[in-house]
Amino acid sequence: MKIADREFHSRLLLGTGKFASGELMVASVKASGTELVTLAMRRINPNEKTDPVLTPLQQAGVQLLPNTSGARDAEDAIFAAKLARAATGTNWIKLEIHPDPRYLMPDPIETLKATEALVKLGFVVMPYMHADPVLAKRLEEAGSAVVMPLAAPIGSNNGLRTRDFIEMIIEQANVPVVVDAGIGKPSDAMQAMEMGVDFVLVNTAIASAHNPVQMAACFQEAVVTGRRAFEAGLGVQSFGAAVASSPLTSFLGASA
Amino acid sequence: MKIADREFHSRLLLGTGKFASGELMVASVKASGTELVTLAMRRINPNEKTDPVLTPLQQAGVQLLPNTSGARDAEDAIFAAKLARAATGTNWIKLEIHPDPRYLMPDPIETLKATEALVKLGFVVMPYMHADPVLAKRLEEAGSAVVMPLAAPIGSNNGLRTRDFIEMIIEQANVPVVVDAGIGKPSDAMQAMEMGVDFVLVNTAIASAHNPVQMAACFQEAVVTGRRAFEAGLGVQSFGAAVASSPLTSFLGASA
Amino acid sequence: MKIADREFHSRLLLGTGKFASGELMVASVKASGTELVTLAMRRINPNEKTDPVLTPLQQAGVQLLPNTSGARDAEDAIFAAKLARAATGTNWIKLEIHPDPRYLMPDPIETLKATEALVKLGFVVMPYMHADPVLAKRLEEAGSAVVMPLAAPIGSNNGLRTRDFIEMIIEQANVPVVVDAGIGKPSDAMQAMEMGVDFVLVNTAIASAHNPVQMAACFQEAVVTGRRAFEAGLGVQSFGAAVASSPLTSFLGASA
Amino acid sequence: MKIADREFHSRLLLGTGKFASGELMVASVKASGTELVTLAMRRINPNEKTDPVLTPLQQAGVQLLPNTSGARDAEDAIFAAKLARAATGTNWIKLEIHPDPRYLMPDPIETLKATEALVKLGFVVMPYMHADPVLAKRLEEAGSAVVMPLAAPIGSNNGLRTRDFIEMIIEQANVPVVVDAGIGKPSDAMQAMEMGVDFVLVNTAIASAHNPVQMAACFQEAVVTGRRAFEAGLGVQSFGAAVASSPLTSFLGASA
Repeated sequence: MKIADREFHSRLLLGTGKFASGELMVASVKASGTELVTLAMRRINPNEKTDPVLTPLQQAGVQLLPNTSGARDAEDAIFAAKLARAATGTNWIKLEIHPDPRYLMPDPIETLKATEALVKLGFVVMPYMHADPVLAKRLEEAGSAVVMPLAAPIGSNNGLRTRDFIEMIIEQANVPVVVDAGIGKPSDAMQAMEMGVDFVLVNTAIASAHNPVQMAACFQEAVVTGRRAFEAGLGVQSFGAAVASSPLTSFLGASA
Repeated sequence: MKIADREFHSRLLLGTGKFASGELMVASVKASGTELVTLAMRRINPNEKTDPVLTPLQQAGVQLLPNTSGARDAEDAIFAAKLARAATGTNWIKLEIHPDPRYLMPDPIETLKATEALVKLGFVVMPYMHADPVLAKRLEEAGSAVVMPLAAPIGSNNGLRTRDFIEMIIEQANVPVVVDAGIGKPSDAMQAMEMGVDFVLVNTAIASAHNPVQMAACFQEAVVTGRRAFEAGLGVQSFGAAVASSPLTSFLGASA
Repeated sequence: MKIADREFHSRLLLGTGKFASGELMVASVKASGTELVTLAMRRINPNEKTDPVLTPLQQAGVQLLPNTSGARDAEDAIFAAKLARAATGTNWIKLEIHPDPRYLMPDPIETLKATEALVKLGFVVMPYMHADPVLAKRLEEAGSAVVMPLAAPIGSNNGLRTRDFIEMIIEQANVPVVVDAGIGKPSDAMQAMEMGVDFVLVNTAIASAHNPVQMAACFQEAVVTGRRAFEAGLGVQSFGAAVASSPLTSFLGASA
Repeated sequence: MKIADREFHSRLLLGTGKFASGELMVASVKASGTELVTLAMRRINPNEKTDPVLTPLQQAGVQLLPNTSGARDAEDAIFAAKLARAATGTNWIKLEIHPDPRYLMPDPIETLKATEALVKLGFVVMPYMHADPVLAKRLEEAGSAVVMPLAAPIGSNNGLRTRDFIEMIIEQANVPVVVDAGIGKPSDAMQAMEMGVDFVLVNTAIASAHNPVQMAACFQEAVVTGRRAFEAGLGVQSFGAAVASSPLTSFLGASA
């Protein structure tokens, strides 16, 4: 599957924040099999030839997805995106605009405004957003490469709290749907995939695990299996079987 | 891990009811990697040398777990267990006693009574039960090889509705905990594993899938990954991050 | 509506434990409008003429429902029931048997055994139980006056976690269904009533409120309204409106 | 409590769509005790002296809240608001902008734009919105009189699916929070009130009830009681009691 013009073999995207060390982060990225990792701009030192975070990621062959984390409005975000392009050479940008310092909830108005501007500037824009179906449509119309609805508050590990709305977004989207923020367990990522989501972005759930490297591998497997389950076609839910799947009655009767 | 004296490499158990054909059932069993499958007694014809269901399962090398499905009380179940032992040569029995023909909910009183009797008769007893922590303790004390709490009504595909109580059972059990009934999606099975459940039994979710064979493989992977995630140690849940994982502020400040 | 031969006008039952003071408990009982309150036997001093807890409750005109809290098996419970009858003069007994000191989950086997014995001894038996539909049926057949499934672990305030199973119990019961344990908010009690439950027993949610007396009044109102809502017939749930309830289009068109 | 400069004694707002008849609608409005009802513009005929819907509502003394239902963008909505003001004489407007004809989800961008314009035109603006905490803040800053996050898709009766986000909105809002859309049962309305929501708007749940008039009265009671419960201070939730509230042990010991 593709995002913009690039083909991906992994449906798992990784965030690189909150890890106990750079080594652990790089090892987790490798274990996850991801081909696309987000990176906050402040973690990159553009004046150094070899960056302790950036260089190993580049050597691992993953695509970098700089994010605008910390931006409070479109202007901040556009500025950060330009810096990111200059520093990393990529025109891909994960757009995060959160004026709220407490819950880091995204701003729909500024996110749309920045998306429109960045698309015109030639960026491949991946916007973090609330699970708002109309906003998803509008971002798509503005040229975003994907839509990235949140599952739950960022960093909460609470799972698919916005499921009803993500279902609508999947139904209506013509660009890939990436569930971002709130995924807390591999089973959450798998459930998103079972619903038909295209990609999942995970960070806190891996970084806060007891063994992040092993957890990264679990997420990789969960995403692959979840997609296969979606393709295998889940059975429907009901209130329970009114008929025994395999009653003994006839057998007992026959042997009587 | 073991049930009774037997070592298992797969934590997935399969039921064999509701499949569209015997071929599909056998192919699903093989794809699932399971080593233990349940089988209703009425589906076995003890007078035939080669049974169209039994023989392929035996050739596949899986352990048979006859069940007493259809039994309405302990007496029925004990009778069925004896017949099963005679017909299949195994002393393993999945005990299902459901006087209620509508929802097939298990009877706690008769299940304990039958467990006590069958243990004395040398059976390895695997009792299907409501997610009742005290009953789980009593079945264990009566010598059951495992406890098998239901996740949701049998055949419902509704997932882990009894989670609170299964957590108590896990905390208190000294025998393996097998979640039985109600698992509807691979992510449900994975979630059970992430909680620390030892085995999962799946039937309807596979048999009612559009592609049962592929779904069986998905469940196998979900169970393996779920166990690994449990061992990797999940991060905790919270209401959301009060601090940006990677604020732009300092970077923007530094570049100002 | 009736329990045994007694007519009740209130569908709310109150527990009397955990209150900060006896005065607060009595005031809460009065504010709740309940006609039936449970009372642990150890709180009654049979040697005193006027008991600081018992006497005000008797003066308030509520029916006492002694409970066997602390009983670990049927024998304990039968002994406690006899003591309670001698001390209070009532043959009503709330049967609680919990061998598990941690979560106080009820024992299905001992509860059925004690119910059978106590019914023969002339008691009106109200058994606390897990939300186990088959056990409910068996207790009813043994002559219990009601069945009392738990909503969630006792003292947890977690609400209707066992909803699926309480629905089955309601569908199958011929005696009143009393939801006991776990109700945490007036809206939980109302939801139980909306489902068709007959009575609700509340204790911790009131005793642990900031203002227990006012909370008791809220529960009274919630139960009354919940029952009326059940009788008014709830609308069905769906995934959302495909048709605008009141589109502007025709109006705008008409005015163009 | 107030909205804009007007004092309200009822925290329940009613929608008037979907009723089987005008009589039933008016009777439900009266039974609900509401002082503020929404009304789609197309239901008003400005050329008639006495309107079969409008006149009885006016006679009942309720404040009319015309809505812009059917508007697909800010321009539509502003036009409709002006017409509504001309036709009804009120400058209060419930702003609904939903370009999506299937789920009627609100448009955040157009809603903010229309709010800014209508506030400048002297309207008291009550905007229907997704449960988006940042959007709520921005609408408030634009001068909206309240914020109106949805609980679930409109017309779904699914209850408080957006609870996590409504909690954030309550925490951050300086204007009244009105939960709009998705409330399906009186217990849902009560739960919203218990969380600290200021007002609840209900329509489908009443109009689709078997007995709408009685259901309207139930909602009125639920809202009143829910607010009182909020003020009484709910007890906290936990995983269950580790200590018996009233153990029998000491009593049995004392009596031995």
